[in-house]
Amino acid sequence: MNNITDIHYGPLPADSPYVKPFRFHYTQNGKQKSWDLLKVHDSVSIVIFNVTRKKLVFVKQFRPAVYHGIISSDGVQPGSIDMVKYPPELAVTMELCAGIIDKPISTIEIAREEILEECGYDIPVERIEEIIRYRSGVGTSGAEQTLFYAEVTDADKIATAGGGVDDEMIDVVEYDLEEARKLTAKGTVISSPPSFLFGLLWFLCNRAPKS
Amino acid sequence: MNNITDIHYGPLPADSPYVKPFRFHYTQNGKQKSWDLLKVHDSVSIVIFNVTRKKLVFVKQFRPAVYHGIISSDGVQPGSIDMVKYPPELAVTMELCAGIIDKPISTIEIAREEILEECGYDIPVERIEEIIRYRSGVGTSGAEQTLFYAEVTDADKIATAGGGVDDEMIDVVEYDLEEARKLTAKGTVISSPPSFLFGLLWFLCNRAPKS
Repeated sequence: MNNITDIHYGPLPADSPYVKPFRFHYTQNGKQKSWDLLKVHDSVSIVIFNVTRKKLVFVKQFRPAVYHGIISSDGVQPGSIDMVKYPPELAVTMELCAGIIDKPISTIEIAREEILEECGYDIPVERIEEIIRYRSGVGTSGAEQTLFYAEVTDADKIATAGGGVDDEMIDVVEYDLEEARKLTAKGTVISSPPSFLFGLLWFLCNRAPKS
Repeated sequence: MNNITDIHYGPLPADSPYVKPFRFHYTQNGKQKSWDLLKVHDSVSIVIFNVTRKKLVFVKQFRPAVYHGIISSDGVQPGSIDMVKYPPELAVTMELCAGIIDKPISTIEIAREEILEECGYDIPVERIEEIIRYRSGVGTSGAEQTLFYAEVTDADKIATAGGGVDDEMIDVVEYDLEEARKLTAKGTVISSPPSFLFGLLWFLCNRAPKS
């Protein structure tokens, strides 16, 4: 999945459907202020636990934003990337199954679709539990993300499904509880977002079966 | 702190120091792809526990990005905001003490400064503990955030400090353990980022004194 070549940057097109930046002006307690931000879609993410095999189900994918975050912090320009020093694997993230809310169906329906499309489990919404809503990217986008929890079984798995749709290239991975617990331990350096860490720790504290 | 008026939007200036959007082009497994993203600063955040009074120390502030996220999801245009229906308090977030890495000092030194500037506690770096590093905004920015933990006492408090620097308007709030625990419970809807929820839950699982 990670044969990445020919990295280069270009200007943001004015009609980008994904990133719409602008400047927000306001007055706070009589003082004129402004903040540069962008509109991104609200989203869902789902902690998935396969109860048949007692495994958590996560997704891994190459994230261009993370790759750029890594090389730009080191001052590396796109035309001169040492692909041995900066292999694309550095920017393969581990995340919860997730998706943006980009059509007029309910949040939980979006969650149901993502569980099927990304991870291959076909379950009804009645088996998906809403946990908590929060704001991601409070400094730049402020979009709402809803965290869900779902238990699946091997019988729910559609053999031909998973891995994303269109040209998404998503790997599904499974972690047992002990491996997963280590990901939240002191000293961890992980290419995962904080929503992954929170969802995982929430599961471990509230839903993980006692061994 | 939340007398907010005169909200309007303008274009993003080409020289914005905060939001630098562009298009990232690459080839993955022979398929040409692109991703729209932006460079944002790496950052730190700190879970602060006042051991004198057994209280967690958080910060609250008006976040333009969250306000925009709320009204734009409802299709409200900036020229016609009903400030009774959408009071600015909706976009006052609760967060960990945090800050961007915008100068050439160590990450832990940045954390030390933020603890003083935002929350008013003056402690040496030896009392700040690095917990975990992760990537925020994996879809749009991919910046690294380092989570720290610090225990403070009332004796560390500088009476005149806290609340941010320059024209930051930051309120410091304290939560006891029982109040804090409720923030991570099922059914919560909170104007906080997932890094707050993870840091809080990590503390509750790993450092909170047993009652």
